[in-house]
Amino acid sequence: MGKIGVWLIGARGSVATTAIAGAAAMRAGLAARTGCVTEQPDFAGAELPGLGDLVFGGHDVVDTPLVKRAEHLVAAGVLPATLPGPVAADLEAAEARLRPAPDGGGRAAIDRVVADLTAFGEGLDHVVVVNVSSTEPPCAPHPAHASLTALEAALDAGEDVLPASALYAYAAFRAGCGFVDFTPSTGARLPALDELARETGLPYAGRDGKTGETLLRAVLAPMFAQRALNVLAWSGTNLLGGGDGATLADPGAASSKNASKQQVLEQNLGHPVDGEVHIDYVPALGDWKTAWDHVLFEGFLGTRMTLQLTWQGCDSALAAPLVLDLARLTGKACRDGVAGPVAEFGFFFKDPVGDGPHDLASQYAALREWANR
Amino acid sequence: MGKIGVWLIGARGSVATTAIAGAAAMRAGLAARTGCVTEQPDFAGAELPGLGDLVFGGHDVVDTPLVKRAEHLVAAGVLPATLPGPVAADLEAAEARLRPAPDGGGRAAIDRVVADLTAFGEGLDHVVVVNVSSTEPPCAPHPAHASLTALEAALDAGEDVLPASALYAYAAFRAGCGFVDFTPSTGARLPALDELARETGLPYAGRDGKTGETLLRAVLAPMFAQRALNVLAWSGTNLLGGGDGATLADPGAASSKNASKQQVLEQNLGHPVDGEVHIDYVPALGDWKTAWDHVLFEGFLGTRMTLQLTWQGCDSALAAPLVLDLARLTGKACRDGVAGPVAEFGFFFKDPVGDGPHDLASQYAALREWANR
Amino acid sequence: MGKIGVWLIGARGSVATTAIAGAAAMRAGLAARTGCVTEQPDFAGAELPGLGDLVFGGHDVVDTPLVKRAEHLVAAGVLPATLPGPVAADLEAAEARLRPAPDGGGRAAIDRVVADLTAFGEGLDHVVVVNVSSTEPPCAPHPAHASLTALEAALDAGEDVLPASALYAYAAFRAGCGFVDFTPSTGARLPALDELARETGLPYAGRDGKTGETLLRAVLAPMFAQRALNVLAWSGTNLLGGGDGATLADPGAASSKNASKQQVLEQNLGHPVDGEVHIDYVPALGDWKTAWDHVLFEGFLGTRMTLQLTWQGCDSALAAPLVLDLARLTGKACRDGVAGPVAEFGFFFKDPVGDGPHDLASQYAALREWANR
Amino acid sequence: MGKIGVWLIGARGSVATTAIAGAAAMRAGLAARTGCVTEQPDFAGAELPGLGDLVFGGHDVVDTPLVKRAEHLVAAGVLPATLPGPVAADLEAAEARLRPAPDGGGRAAIDRVVADLTAFGEGLDHVVVVNVSSTEPPCAPHPAHASLTALEAALDAGEDVLPASALYAYAAFRAGCGFVDFTPSTGARLPALDELARETGLPYAGRDGKTGETLLRAVLAPMFAQRALNVLAWSGTNLLGGGDGATLADPGAASSKNASKQQVLEQNLGHPVDGEVHIDYVPALGDWKTAWDHVLFEGFLGTRMTLQLTWQGCDSALAAPLVLDLARLTGKACRDGVAGPVAEFGFFFKDPVGDGPHDLASQYAALREWANR
Repeated sequence: MGKIGVWLIGARGSVATTAIAGAAAMRAGLAARTGCVTEQPDFAGAELPGLGDLVFGGHDVVDTPLVKRAEHLVAAGVLPATLPGPVAADLEAAEARLRPAPDGGGRAAIDRVVADLTAFGEGLDHVVVVNVSSTEPPCAPHPAHASLTALEAALDAGEDVLPASALYAYAAFRAGCGFVDFTPSTGARLPALDELARETGLPYAGRDGKTGETLLRAVLAPMFAQRALNVLAWSGTNLLGGGDGATLADPGAASSKNASKQQVLEQNLGHPVDGEVHIDYVPALGDWKTAWDHVLFEGFLGTRMTLQLTWQGCDSALAAPLVLDLARLTGKACRDGVAGPVAEFGFFFKDPVGDGPHDLASQYAALREWANR
Repeated sequence: MGKIGVWLIGARGSVATTAIAGAAAMRAGLAARTGCVTEQPDFAGAELPGLGDLVFGGHDVVDTPLVKRAEHLVAAGVLPATLPGPVAADLEAAEARLRPAPDGGGRAAIDRVVADLTAFGEGLDHVVVVNVSSTEPPCAPHPAHASLTALEAALDAGEDVLPASALYAYAAFRAGCGFVDFTPSTGARLPALDELARETGLPYAGRDGKTGETLLRAVLAPMFAQRALNVLAWSGTNLLGGGDGATLADPGAASSKNASKQQVLEQNLGHPVDGEVHIDYVPALGDWKTAWDHVLFEGFLGTRMTLQLTWQGCDSALAAPLVLDLARLTGKACRDGVAGPVAEFGFFFKDPVGDGPHDLASQYAALREWANR
Repeated sequence: MGKIGVWLIGARGSVATTAIAGAAAMRAGLAARTGCVTEQPDFAGAELPGLGDLVFGGHDVVDTPLVKRAEHLVAAGVLPATLPGPVAADLEAAEARLRPAPDGGGRAAIDRVVADLTAFGEGLDHVVVVNVSSTEPPCAPHPAHASLTALEAALDAGEDVLPASALYAYAAFRAGCGFVDFTPSTGARLPALDELARETGLPYAGRDGKTGETLLRAVLAPMFAQRALNVLAWSGTNLLGGGDGATLADPGAASSKNASKQQVLEQNLGHPVDGEVHIDYVPALGDWKTAWDHVLFEGFLGTRMTLQLTWQGCDSALAAPLVLDLARLTGKACRDGVAGPVAEFGFFFKDPVGDGPHDLASQYAALREWANR
Repeated sequence: MGKIGVWLIGARGSVATTAIAGAAAMRAGLAARTGCVTEQPDFAGAELPGLGDLVFGGHDVVDTPLVKRAEHLVAAGVLPATLPGPVAADLEAAEARLRPAPDGGGRAAIDRVVADLTAFGEGLDHVVVVNVSSTEPPCAPHPAHASLTALEAALDAGEDVLPASALYAYAAFRAGCGFVDFTPSTGARLPALDELARETGLPYAGRDGKTGETLLRAVLAPMFAQRALNVLAWSGTNLLGGGDGATLADPGAASSKNASKQQVLEQNLGHPVDGEVHIDYVPALGDWKTAWDHVLFEGFLGTRMTLQLTWQGCDSALAAPLVLDLARLTGKACRDGVAGPVAEFGFFFKDPVGDGPHDLASQYAALREWANR
């Protein structure tokens, strides 16, 4: 089996740096496979690309070297102090394949991205583009999003109608790459881009990695439903440091994230549920996040009861192994000629593309079956 | 379809009183079906005995009238203040069918129970015996438990070799009744009693209703496994008031309960897990219980993270609807001629009989399939 | 010692109803003095008006009878089911002394309130007006607030320059009554009203009863300061049902409450502290509230540590005994001729008038000393 | 002002290593004074020995070099990665002053310790011995503990009647040193040793540093008392890794710690309080500890409410600065000729010597006053 290219949008961010450094550490036998879903026995027969077959590149708007970023992550308690040394060569190899993100939008930017992806893909079997950059504000609707014809016409007319995440998805499909959106941004979720993916025979997946509060909601909400317990209100507060905290403290950017969080409850419980979700930026938390959830529910004869949860996690450590899983799975999808949305990857996402189940147990079963079919 | 008798061991306890009063309230249209698993659409085609087909009786060692017990439960905030009035007639009808628990053990006690069950069963299609009495200390092993022949010989010799819960199971099978153990006591879980159940063609289920901490563990432990997160320690503290709190504060009685709590983790995670479980008796909590769980886990590259849970529930409100579910399901099992342990009822139990799955999602699927086959 | 009138603004609300019913229950020997600060040995020598010396009246905008309100509070789990019966006569006696709140503002409304207070005060030694009505939105500044002369001129000119809470404070002083603001509303906190209180020789106290999150902050923030631990962020989420939840879900009304919550931290820690406070309306919580606080702090050599708190309380049960305490203490202040803000009552308030200490321990010491001087 | 010697029992442990490294870092301007009580403005006039006047030595039963221990503490996330390098010279200087703990007990061991302390004290103004070694099991009563005469007689007779912590206290007083017990062990708390301290004119303090659950109890219990709220049960679970976790998992050693934890509640609330305290050893927590407390209390008219706390702290980071504070304060006590127990240091301890207040606020006031008198 040949090499799979992993092109990271936001390649110098915490998640990307952790993924690149972690893959190198595991290949070198310096780290266990903890957190890697596809390294489990359930996926032994899946013939996925190996960790050793992944080649990393990507775009970023900043230019801090990956080695420097890894040192910051050590200071922040995300990477072990012993890690960066032994994987420095791998970080430098990836560094040499990073390109600056294009300025502006429209055709010119698209052409730049397509050219970068094409050059990167030389000698690789397939390339998977993974968006791990900062969350965008919600995208204003535009008529050009409705069909590929309308989109091409707008682009030809020099219009700048795609937010950055969608521009990357467009360029990925044009360059023959699979696309994964690990953020709540638009990505490939426009009718025009879905059309393009199907037409070019390329897979896409997303949206918004499920790494904390929503992961818990996707296992706990089904429990309430199966026990016929009536959830009266499900409230949540998320404290985030780091770059994503700053971005999501902006009510515009947060609104798309919050919508998908409450949607998971409604899908699993079968009815809309009272309760607000807050995202607070707490800079001193650094790369860590804390989620508190309060569930008020009603049992037999109307008795009121509660469940509270506190999840304290390191965002990059939770996200990075899933990025590797998704790169390998989407690499397989490319190899197998899967076209359009891959609903079976819903296990990884808050707001999955396609029409899959909503509870984590069924999502895991669907993923395992897809991988082993 | 005919009537199903529900014979409750511990018939004047909080769980039993809540179940009897609640069934009456639902029949009268005074309460919603919240908390009743088998009232959900998934079970619409199961042809289960209706709530209106249940007839309640039982044994208890105390003699406080059910109406009085219901008033206590109102004062304790378990039953709504408006409930006991309208269901007083139903409570009195059940009252008339209650019998004092037999003194002592051995053949004499068994004969008393068989006679009570036989009398109760007149005019009913089937009878299901449900143990909702206080938890027993673990049962000392005895050679007579190993086979039905050995057991009969010991009983014939006047030996008193069965703890109360097992004595009731024996009598139930001899009287042609199904048996459910909702407590962590021995119940039907002796080779000799399993043999008797199969020989008499009767179903049994248990053990130890899953209504709080273990319910959560059965949904959360699979999540850690599916995400390849390495649970380093899972610690728990349970604060219980009421009768069960007093019983379980005794280290002997608690040990069987704790063993099944940690076993659920091991079964779902695939390895033994560090961490203790405490059960504290806090009388002022009354019928309420609080469970705090602390999960320390390791993610990608060894990063340590935590999850904490606090569950605040009313024990009787959580258990009573499941007792009704189990009575109806076991009634169906009797009707269908199911003999021996019903592994498909594992959804309800901490330490299920038979050889079913351990995660709640699969347990629910197994139950639904069993009911609708 | 003579009678003290307690005139409640919001006299049919949960707090007022609980206070009136509770005072009657304690007088009748049906309830312990739990929650009553001034019933403790520390206040034995304070010669405060007795519970039996309090006479209740008040204004409200609604007209549900107190007896009806008490029944609602039983159903909501706030009052014991056994309470309303024995105190029905007391509730009806108070009912007879309630008056509808005046419509509109300005001189006409003031005259109505002064007349009601004067009539109520017949035969009583002193009257204390206590505002326990719903929180107002913050009051827009107005030049007439700056001095009594300016205020009188504006009122004479028919201008409606006072929010309801301040109108009641004005009327209270004009009618010779003490005034307590238990809410975050404006109340007596305008220079013009302070001038009036001093001129008329009447005491006032407030603002915003400290019954949950802020109470905890006033004891825990000093601990961090005394231990030289550096609080990096203090975040809070409050889930409230009931009328106050609905009012405070309005961002306008919440903003004054939030400001005083963060101010308590700054005053005790000596520097502004990062962190947001949310107030969510969760109707199903009824009269109950839950506050979750997350404190991120730094210790020796920069080590990051956390404290989390969850407070689950019944708002009326927490507030009502303090209303009785304040009525008695302010009654004593009236008797002793105290004029202007009583800083020594800061123990009860989030945002105290006057210039007292900010930590709860010192506030308690100041109160005890004031009462016993 | 001259130099103060700080002789640490358990000098290679996490607390001692952190204290020595931290003092060096602060002297070198590499770390802020966070966590150091006596560095606050309230103590500016106290004329305490400066951080630069402290000279470290000590005993330990292990011989891992301090530099190595500091590296372990970096890997464990207790010390910053950048710290050990710049303070290596200070660690080596302390290393040269460490002595192996004596084997056995009795006169021979005492003489060894006295000789070590005397040699260490050459050229220093005063020496303070601080016990930061592992917790001992409770000490069996012995007649020789009752008076100095009885103790000397037993020692002269070759009897081994003192647990290690008390042997060090004895030797400290004989060598003219002050003594601080930061652990729950016996230390100087025997009538015979109290007599010796008074006779030799030396101060002692202890017992058991208050760095987590008990610190919180000492501020929160007074709040419940001042608000006349009736605490019905206060339950706690402590999860500890590290050496102290292993020691305290032994029920014998834990019992002395638990007794002092519940005692703080009783002293502050004025009555014994229901509830258990658990100490669980969770090795994977390393140097970190988590305490969960659940407080069930009763308010006005018997309403039940709860407070829950979770404290997540690094034991060494919490304890080490207090060790420095106590060394400086006890150095001053030596200088000032204070003899016997110093009750004013109760602010630092779970189970303070002498007869001081029990609430943290009063303890802080007493300490500040003592230091500035």
